[in-house]
Amino acid sequence: MERFIEIICIGNELLIGKILNTNAQWLARYITSLGLSVKRIITIGDDIEEISKTLSESLQRKPIFIITTGGLGPTFDDKTLEGMANALSLKLKVDEEALRMVERRYRQYVEEGMLEEVELTPHRVKMATLPDGAKPLPNPVGTAPGVLLKHGDTTIVALPGVPDEMRAIFEGSVAPLLKEAAGGVIFYEVSLEALGIFESDLAPLIERTMRNNPYVYIKSHPKGGERISRIELHLFTTAKDSSIARNRIGRAIIQLSDLINERGGRLTPERLFS
Amino acid sequence: MERFIEIICIGNELLIGKILNTNAQWLARYITSLGLSVKRIITIGDDIEEISKTLSESLQRKPIFIITTGGLGPTFDDKTLEGMANALSLKLKVDEEALRMVERRYRQYVEEGMLEEVELTPHRVKMATLPDGAKPLPNPVGTAPGVLLKHGDTTIVALPGVPDEMRAIFEGSVAPLLKEAAGGVIFYEVSLEALGIFESDLAPLIERTMRNNPYVYIKSHPKGGERISRIELHLFTTAKDSSIARNRIGRAIIQLSDLINERGGRLTPERLFS
Repeated sequence: MERFIEIICIGNELLIGKILNTNAQWLARYITSLGLSVKRIITIGDDIEEISKTLSESLQRKPIFIITTGGLGPTFDDKTLEGMANALSLKLKVDEEALRMVERRYRQYVEEGMLEEVELTPHRVKMATLPDGAKPLPNPVGTAPGVLLKHGDTTIVALPGVPDEMRAIFEGSVAPLLKEAAGGVIFYEVSLEALGIFESDLAPLIERTMRNNPYVYIKSHPKGGERISRIELHLFTTAKDSSIARNRIGRAIIQLSDLINERGGRLTPERLFS
Repeated sequence: MERFIEIICIGNELLIGKILNTNAQWLARYITSLGLSVKRIITIGDDIEEISKTLSESLQRKPIFIITTGGLGPTFDDKTLEGMANALSLKLKVDEEALRMVERRYRQYVEEGMLEEVELTPHRVKMATLPDGAKPLPNPVGTAPGVLLKHGDTTIVALPGVPDEMRAIFEGSVAPLLKEAAGGVIFYEVSLEALGIFESDLAPLIERTMRNNPYVYIKSHPKGGERISRIELHLFTTAKDSSIARNRIGRAIIQLSDLINERGGRLTPERLFS
């Protein structure tokens, strides 16, 4: 069975193009580096029905993890947990552990003189009101805890939309779970540049190289249009250990480089990143 | 009936986090500025079945436009048009107009001395092979034409993934259609900064202001966590003309500013952008 992850990004600010979705890229890159694959990234608005419907559809595709970003804060349009409760027909209730996390954060604000007293207003308690059975994940840099909820073979993880908080909770509480799920597989990649060849002429050479190197994926990215004839080639693989991965990529580079030379182009020897 | 747009971004490079999805933001922002709303942005891989399934699901939600990015080039993993044909049970065939566009581009490369002769290889003809009934959209800066296909009340537009090409085709061939669909509605927005107030305390004030100003949407974006007490407030509306829009936003700002002052905070008078 295919093991994959889906990411759901929640926030009207993404749908109106106010915010660039750096969260999705950061998560996709991190998850990929652990040897797992992201199959779908869906961005939707702050709407309970949309969140609920999107989560239900995602659950039907049976990913091992669904990771959501956004909609965990204190404002009226932070609706992720309501949408999650709705999708799974769960009641929302104040979680004692989550409430202690929120309270601890406001107590710290009082100690720092930013707040006069810890008052647990309804908008603050909201951040500790979770779907029944969910577990709060500590937020080391902000107020709203992350949320983890298992449903069948899928683990749903809800992270805040503020990038620092999203990253801190992911690194602290989610990455270890993903590493375990990946079972020690690693992701390895190299980028090179092809010069003096059109993408349409490079295409059949890439196909041949990929046929001969079944575990290596090669993607071409023209830089500045075909006119310029500068094409980034991104080669990547996942493997049980890095020497296997390096060998696979190395073999593919040698073959592809020979084919490009025959066509009068060349592959730059230096790596752009690895 | 709700009139909305969905964006489908196609490319493994997005799912592995290699590329930041600036195309989605650019399109969302542009579409919003025309007074139309984007309801969903979906990122999927270079996989015919995924593309076909995602398009079919999107069509069922009945958007007025579906805009796809990526997967129109000459390489084996450029599969958008195959996925589209699959979703709509259409045959793929070489489109004469599209082929002339592709040929004209390569002739230009020959004239510029970049290519010896115009040879229409299978990988080049691929870019002019469209679902039956589709119309090619001229690509002023690259090789692969965009593609437009009507299906029921939905217009599907396929754009390349290379940002320059995507933008040029959108501005030249797609934006005029969207403007017509929007019927003269405009989008107006202002960003301000709230200082000296926690987001959880600001939340009920925003709710009250939005209740009193039903056409204005207000969203708070904490900058650097609650600790810093700097919150961006983004107010926006769509209206038939800009003086109506400006009045609505102005009224909301005055009310919100008064409420924030009462709580000991303040709203910075200068606009961050508009």
